[in-house]
This record gives sequence, structure tokens and C-alpha cells, in this order.
Amino acid sequence: MATSVKVIERTRSAYDYPLLIKHLLHTPQRIARDQEIVYRDLKRYTYGEFMGRIGKVANMLKALGVGPGSTVGVMDWDSHRYLECYFAVPMMGAILHTVNVRLAPEQIVYTINHAEDDVLLVHSDFLKLVEMIQPEFTTVKKIVLLQDVPGEISTTLELAGEYEDLVSSASEGYDFPDFDENARATTFYTTGTTGLPKGVYFSHRQLVLHTISVLAGANALKPYGVGFRSDDVYMPITPMFHVHAWGLPYAATMIGVKQVYPGRYEPEMLLRLIEKEKVTFSHCVPTILHMLLSHPASKEIDLSSWRVIIGGSALPEALCKAALDRGIDVYTGYGMSETCPVLTLAHLRPEMVGWSKDEQIPVRCKTGLPVPLVDIHVVDPEGKPLPHDGKSTGEIVVRCPWLTQGYFKETERSEELWHGGWLHTGDVGHIDEKGYLKITDRIKDVIKTGGEWISSLDLENIILKHEAVSEAAAIGVPHEKWGERPVVLVVLKPEYRGKVSEEDLRNFYMDFVDKGVISKWGVPDRILMVDQIPKTSVGKLDKKVMRQQVIDLLKQG
Amino acid sequence: MATSVKVIERTRSAYDYPLLIKHLLHTPQRIARDQEIVYRDLKRYTYGEFMGRIGKVANMLKALGVGPGSTVGVMDWDSHRYLECYFAVPMMGAILHTVNVRLAPEQIVYTINHAEDDVLLVHSDFLKLVEMIQPEFTTVKKIVLLQDVPGEISTTLELAGEYEDLVSSASEGYDFPDFDENARATTFYTTGTTGLPKGVYFSHRQLVLHTISVLAGANALKPYGVGFRSDDVYMPITPMFHVHAWGLPYAATMIGVKQVYPGRYEPEMLLRLIEKEKVTFSHCVPTILHMLLSHPASKEIDLSSWRVIIGGSALPEALCKAALDRGIDVYTGYGMSETCPVLTLAHLRPEMVGWSKDEQIPVRCKTGLPVPLVDIHVVDPEGKPLPHDGKSTGEIVVRCPWLTQGYFKETERSEELWHGGWLHTGDVGHIDEKGYLKITDRIKDVIKTGGEWISSLDLENIILKHEAVSEAAAIGVPHEKWGERPVVLVVLKPEYRGKVSEEDLRNFYMDFVDKGVISKWGVPDRILMVDQIPKTSVGKLDKKVMRQQVIDLLKQG
Repeated sequence: MATSVKVIERTRSAYDYPLLIKHLLHTPQRIARDQEIVYRDLKRYTYGEFMGRIGKVANMLKALGVGPGSTVGVMDWDSHRYLECYFAVPMMGAILHTVNVRLAPEQIVYTINHAEDDVLLVHSDFLKLVEMIQPEFTTVKKIVLLQDVPGEISTTLELAGEYEDLVSSASEGYDFPDFDENARATTFYTTGTTGLPKGVYFSHRQLVLHTISVLAGANALKPYGVGFRSDDVYMPITPMFHVHAWGLPYAATMIGVKQVYPGRYEPEMLLRLIEKEKVTFSHCVPTILHMLLSHPASKEIDLSSWRVIIGGSALPEALCKAALDRGIDVYTGYGMSETCPVLTLAHLRPEMVGWSKDEQIPVRCKTGLPVPLVDIHVVDPEGKPLPHDGKSTGEIVVRCPWLTQGYFKETERSEELWHGGWLHTGDVGHIDEKGYLKITDRIKDVIKTGGEWISSLDLENIILKHEAVSEAAAIGVPHEKWGERPVVLVVLKPEYRGKVSEEDLRNFYMDFVDKGVISKWGVPDRILMVDQIPKTSVGKLDKKVMRQQVIDLLKQG
Repeated sequence: MATSVKVIERTRSAYDYPLLIKHLLHTPQRIARDQEIVYRDLKRYTYGEFMGRIGKVANMLKALGVGPGSTVGVMDWDSHRYLECYFAVPMMGAILHTVNVRLAPEQIVYTINHAEDDVLLVHSDFLKLVEMIQPEFTTVKKIVLLQDVPGEISTTLELAGEYEDLVSSASEGYDFPDFDENARATTFYTTGTTGLPKGVYFSHRQLVLHTISVLAGANALKPYGVGFRSDDVYMPITPMFHVHAWGLPYAATMIGVKQVYPGRYEPEMLLRLIEKEKVTFSHCVPTILHMLLSHPASKEIDLSSWRVIIGGSALPEALCKAALDRGIDVYTGYGMSETCPVLTLAHLRPEMVGWSKDEQIPVRCKTGLPVPLVDIHVVDPEGKPLPHDGKSTGEIVVRCPWLTQGYFKETERSEELWHGGWLHTGDVGHIDEKGYLKITDRIKDVIKTGGEWISSLDLENIILKHEAVSEAAAIGVPHEKWGERPVVLVVLKPEYRGKVSEEDLRNFYMDFVDKGVISKWGVPDRILMVDQIPKTSVGKLDKKVMRQQVIDLLKQG
């Protein structure tokens, strides 16, 4: 008998059908030509026009010298233009660099040079910034202006033209070629809390597999069709520069749903778009959901047809409850920049659909069940998978077909990410009997006190249940005897400021000690009331900055 | 600037995550351990046990000498055993040959030798047959018996043992290796109407992509969640030896639904299983649906939660109506052995959901909208795509990631399948303004008369609307002057036999000439009433046999 697998050797070129981003367009080209794509209250067009414009954008870029292997950087808010570039740039064989516009100027320069951007598309809001950093560019050859409203612009930059002008006058039709599915399609930079930004990168194959697997998972695993369907109206509220807005614009386009892009995130505009365009599906970080729900304008808007995936950081149970009370179908997704990003979704299982709101909340706040093809485990320090008992806690490691191979041009830091055959997420959590993953902390945010591990997330979740507390963050601060001791920062709701004491909040924690939710060791040494909590450029709690602030504060007494 | 795409060169082996069938099991392993798999009224176990048995089946096969590159042939009715082999055999790196047990004995021998089966698993129903053909085997080394009920068996064959016995005593756990995703996973033989059976073959990559794309398409494109969901109960009624039962057992397993396998197709058993196991989702050829609906036992069964995809041949409008009248959600899928098989599904678009039954029928009877990644066109004889106007008719050509590269070890016949960069389906049809594909005929079944093309499907569909007609088949018979002329065979419903004349049926056609549905040229020369219509081994109309019968009949007068 044979002793090795029989590989199908390709004998005909026609058989070779690489997984390329252009192939995501076959279905919408057939079914969604009249469907709408909307940009704020500024632009509205059909998929038919969108498809035509993808060809024109490619012709425009070609005229600027872009070809296979070139890199195109985009500095824009969430827009139809960005969506056009999501397709046109990689479909040409070029690489799309989604520039993180919330970084500090010197970091933006670093990423543009490090990614080797050839052409840069710049929204007028960032023109002053680019004027300032342009002398340091090492690879950029052309700059295209992105303007929301036509008009004269005064700048010291030499511009190749304005996007809308160039696209309108570009020739129609572009014969997007076939090429290796492992061609690099996108790159962007993660904002680690230490050191320079790190670039991650994804191939056509990875983006196509992510798109169809997430769609297959989102729809099939959640009963009663609460996945992502052709009659949805989709508006992402995670920036398009950050992990391709979780990759869901690709999925939305593939199934041909109406899409709404909100530009810069302004609460009134977001709420108005949800109402006016009848948005049914979004995703965002908890901070954005919190901002929208606590905004006065949200009171008058019916949000009961809105479905929201929360990611980026954990969904606090109190926020989940507030959203459910408004009729919002809210649940958690999990992933990270390095993972393209989606790994798990906190679908309800069929038997949970009839559960009460209070029973559903802990499930919706978990990080969920793996989407198809994702091999994900919680392991002990030796890399051995831990039992699925809802308490054995360890690092989360993963393999699946859409993980970055490493950090772009950074061999050394990539070794931290990949070892022992797995991508190490740096997240800590456990898996329960039903298969639900729950993240309890970042490895580096776990508070290690007297040999015990305390989850900073648990401490935050508890105090967020207090009626006076609007935001919270728990950190470990160095302690001579115990190694570290927990300290919690809280932002009070305006109406409670000056009316709640540190002692009140500590007593609130003591109740949870009595209930057995946390140990006596877990009660924070200090609960500091602050005006705001430091966040990173993508809205996550910035614990590094916080730790320094708290150390300084405590020193002052 | 660069001039070629930047391919991600693999620098770490961990990053390499091939698309292997074993990776479909990650999701059900997490979410569906307690879910059931049922075989008739004979066996019932959980996914947890199923997953354990996959390892045991592999260990059993390994003990028989099976390893990477070996071929395992299976001769079984639809069963849990078959499902175990769908996974265990390819996951070992071996090739699963699903033997078409409905072929003639000499053709079965041909396929077993041509596929180079090393080990053969044989249901006791086929033991006598295998005793007869075994002397002609050229590659088979071991034969394993598949028995529904334990018991003594008398045979001249040297058996390696009985499946259930061998599996029970096999050791647990099997470390399924990683290997090239282009490794051949399955092979089976199509029953062409001319010549020897042709083998098609599919890789792990192809089966994985087919599974997740069909799931993504089935769920996302059909609104209101009428796709394939975790709360479905699935029972295929297309044989597991034929195109992996349309690949849907892989999809069902991936999302962890309850699965029911009915063994040999007996109407009472099928109906009883639908009722008892609360089956919600099946797929079959029109003949099977017709058989079930016209069976007396079906009258007492509530079928209003049953969803059925029809494929293999066109869904006649009359049968669609009969199914809808019973509350069955019926629609068409399209594909063929060479295409793994699914290419399109006749989902309703959101705006059609509120339509009346009569308005929906023509949509449900089309062959539908492409599933994700499928690039499908109707082309003229020069290969140019025809307009989407619902009438421009030509051959259907396709590219997508799950097409057979050719016929196994048959270079010459493969050239007919693949040319000009496309797989040629041999089907003729058109695409309407909404993007729906409709098959009107097989290229070779089109009736060419006096320079005009007449669709044999149209002629069949018309006469099937006549209250007396149960089955119909239209063919072209040679004609000196016109090249060909249409002749239709009909089977009358028992209660109408002897009460309807050929003249009555011809007049029925004339009404459709008056309505402009067919031309005067299209009215068949003869409408012959017969007791039964010849079918191929997979239940399709056998027009080759029919043509000869009709010629003989007409010669006799």
C-alpha cells in the first residue's frame, strides 16, 4: 500500500482557483446591484456603482504608479472610499496599509516608513498633520487628498489630486489579475503598550477564509437566524484602520447587505444614522456602546432592532444589562489584531434562547464559542490544555487559517507571539462545560498578590455593578510584602460625584467577599475616584499609563 | 515601486494551517458533545461518542494496513458508519472511495479496480454481489463486513472481521497528522449515459472550502434564518455514495446539528424518521419527494416544519406546489458530481418572502443564486457571457475552489470538461435580472428541430401540470426533414389510466402554444403513455435508454 498522501498535482491552470479578495464579489455582483452603500449624510450609491468604482480606483492608482507589490496607505475616517480601497488595492496585487490615525505623529511617521507606503491617501482633517511629518517620509511618492465636500484647499503639500476628482475621471474597467493567494493584502500596526507599534499582515487567502468562516459561524451557530443576513443594515463602529473593522465589511459586501459608514465617531451622527438608515447590525468596543446609551439623544431612538457585537475589551455585565433593557441584542466577540481578528462569538445555544435576561447576561458576556476552523485552547504554563470546568485558568493559545505570521520585519518580537506551535494571545481565561471561553485578564494585567492571581476584569466587573460607577479600571501596584496589591480607579456618574465615599465602594466589594465571588485578598487596597481613565488610541484601558499615574498619586499621599 | 505581488514566504511551520477535514471538528467538539446521531431505529449515540469512534475507526483501519495514500472503498447504505468514514479515512491521509452500489456488477468491479481500493467495507446486503465479483479484484487486500444486527453470516469471502466488533475493540485516540491540503480525500464515479463510469476526486482543501462556503451562503443569503442552523435536525435523502450526499453531512457535523441516517430508502421508514426524530432539513431528487408525498402514510404526518432542497434534476412546478401545499419549505439547489456539488441555491430574496405561493413557485424552481466564491456564467458558443435578461440561453460554465480537476486517470475525457479556462457543465440555461440561474436543459437533451432549440424540460414541465400526469420525459428522436422532433413519454396517475387519450394531452400542449409559452414547433409529434420511465442508478431520467425504446416503439408502429 501507499505510504504518503496523494497530493493532487495541478495539470491544468484553469483548475487553479486561488482564494483572492476579488472572488468575494461574485455573489453581490449577482444579487445586490441595487443595494445601497451610505457615507454619513454625504454620499449614497448602489453596489452597481461601487463595483464600477473599484475598477476606477484601480485605474487611478495605476496612473499614480501603483502596481502589484506597491503599498498604499490610507488616512481616512470610516467611509465608502475606505471600502473601495479594501477591495481595489489588494485586488491589484498591491498592499493596503490602514494607517492608525489616532497614533502620535511620530508613530504615524514610523508606521508609514516601516510599511514602505508608496502612495498615501489623506483625508483633509489630517492634512496639517501630514504637512508636519511629510519631510520625514522615506518612501511616499504621491499624496492624494480625500475631501468630503469639494472646495479649495490651501496646503504646502504637493498633491496628486483629489480622490473624487481622480476617480470620476479615471477610465472604467480594470482586469484584476489572478496571483498567488498568499500574496500580502493588508498591513496595519498594533498599539502595544510598550515600544514601537508592531505591524501585522494578512494575505488574500487569510482574509477570504476569515470572511466565509465568520459568516458560516455567525449564522449557523446562533439559532433563529440572528447572524448576519441579507436583510441586515450594517454599520461598523470599530475603525476601518483597525483590523479591517473586524473584517466584517468584507462579509457585509459578500452577502450584499446595505452598508452605512459613519465617518468620524460623533454620538449624534451615529445615533441619527442608526435611526434614519434603520441600522440593524453593528460592532464596537464597550466604551462606544456606553457612550451611545448614556447620550441624551439615545432616549428618543428605538434601538430594539439593533444587534451589536462587543469586542476589544470585555463586555461588563452592567452594560450588557443596560443594552438588553433597551432591546438591543448584544453579545461578545473575541479576537485581536494578530488574529484578523475573529476567533470566538458568544452565541446563545438553542436551549438558552428561552432563558431570562439575567440568565443570559453571563453567557453574552463570555467571549464565546469558536467560529469554524478555529482550534483554541486554554493551557497551563507547560502548554497542556486545561479541563473545561469553567474555572481552570491559563493562557489562551490558538491555531487557525487567519493568524499573522509575525510582526512585520520584527523577527525577535514575533518569537514571543509564536512558540510551541501555537499563537500565544497573552490573554488569560477558562472554558466552561458548554464550551464557552471566558477571558479573565491579560497575562500582564493579572494582579499577583501573595502567590494568588486576581483577575483585574473581575474587580472591574464588580464595581461596575455599583449604581454610582460609570467606568472602572483595576491594576496591580508594586507592594513590598505581597508583590502586588490591587488598586481600582473609578469614574462616578455625574449625579453621584461627591456623594459616594471610598469606604462605600470598599463595602460594596466586601459584599462580594461574603458571597464568595472574590477572596478577601482581592479587595482593592485603594479605590480612587478620578475624572477620566487613560485609554489607548483604540479605546482600550491603558493600564501602563494608569499604573504610573497611580504610583505617582499614592506617592503624593 | 515593486512590480510583483509580495507573497508571504513561510518562515515558521506553526503558521502553516492547512485546510484539512479534521479542522471541521473543532467547533462541534466544543459545542455539540451531547448532540445525537441516529441510524434508523438501530443506533443512536452522541457526538462525543462519534468523535471517539473516529479515532477507533482509524486505529482499526491502520491495523488492516491502511495509511496515508491508501484507498478505502465503502459499500453501505446511508449510516453513522458512513459518516465515521467520511472523517476517519481522509483524516488519516487515506482516500475514501464511496462505491456506487446501484451500478451494474461489472461497473462496480471496474470502479473498485480503477480507484485502486486497498480495503473494502461491505454491508451484508452486498455480500452476495461481492462474492461474485471478488475474483476480478486487482487491488483489494482486506474486506470488512458491515452488519446492522449482529449474527452469524455464511460467506465464501475471507473477512477481516465485522466493523462494529473491530471498532469496539480498537484502541482509543489517533493522532491525525497534518499534511498538504491538496491531498486527495475522496473519489467516486459518475454514471455517464455513455461509456464507462468516470471517477471524480476532491482534496481536503476543496471539501473544507465547499463546507464553509455553502454554510455561509445558505445562511446569509436566505433571510429569516431559513438556512442551516444549530437547532436543525438533518436527514439527507441523497445517497452518501453520491457526491458526499451533496457535502452536507460535513456541514451538519461542523455546526453540530442532530443527524439522522435512514439506511436504504424505504418510504415508510423515511416518513417514520421524519416524524419521530422531528427532521427539519433534508435534500433529495424530485423523484424521492414525489414518492414521499404520494405515499399513503404521508397523509398522517405533519410536514410543515420540513425544509427540502431539491437537486439532481429540475423541480417541476407542480411538485413544488404540492410540497408548499403541505407546508414544506422547498427550493432548488444546483450542482453536479464534478462540482463537489453545490454551485447555486434558489433562496428567496428578502423582498420575495411576502409573495404569494404562486409567485414564489417559479423562483423556488429556478436553480438559484451562486454561493460564495462561485463564478458562474451562461455563455454563447464563443464563450462570451450572455446578458442577464431571463431568456438569452447558452451553456453554463463555472470556476470556483471545489471543482474536480478532471476524471481520474482519464486525460482525454477531462478535456471535454475543462476548456477555455472554465469547467463546462453541459447544462443549458439563462440568468434573469435578479441574478437567478435557470437550467433549461442538458446540452445533449436539447431538441434541435428545424434550426430551433426546444427545451425538453419545458415540455416536461407543461405536461406535468395536467391533472392526469404523474411523470414525464421529453426526448428528441431523429427526423429526416427536421433533424429531430420532440416525443414525450408520460406515466399517468393510476386513477386516470385508460381515461385520457394522446389527443387530450396534445390539446393540453396547444393551450400553451396559444399562451405563447412554446412555439407551434415545440408541440411533440407523439405523446406516448408508458408504465414507467427509465432512470439511471441515481434516479435521473435515462434519456439514452429512452431514445432507443422510443425508436423501437415507433418502428413497431
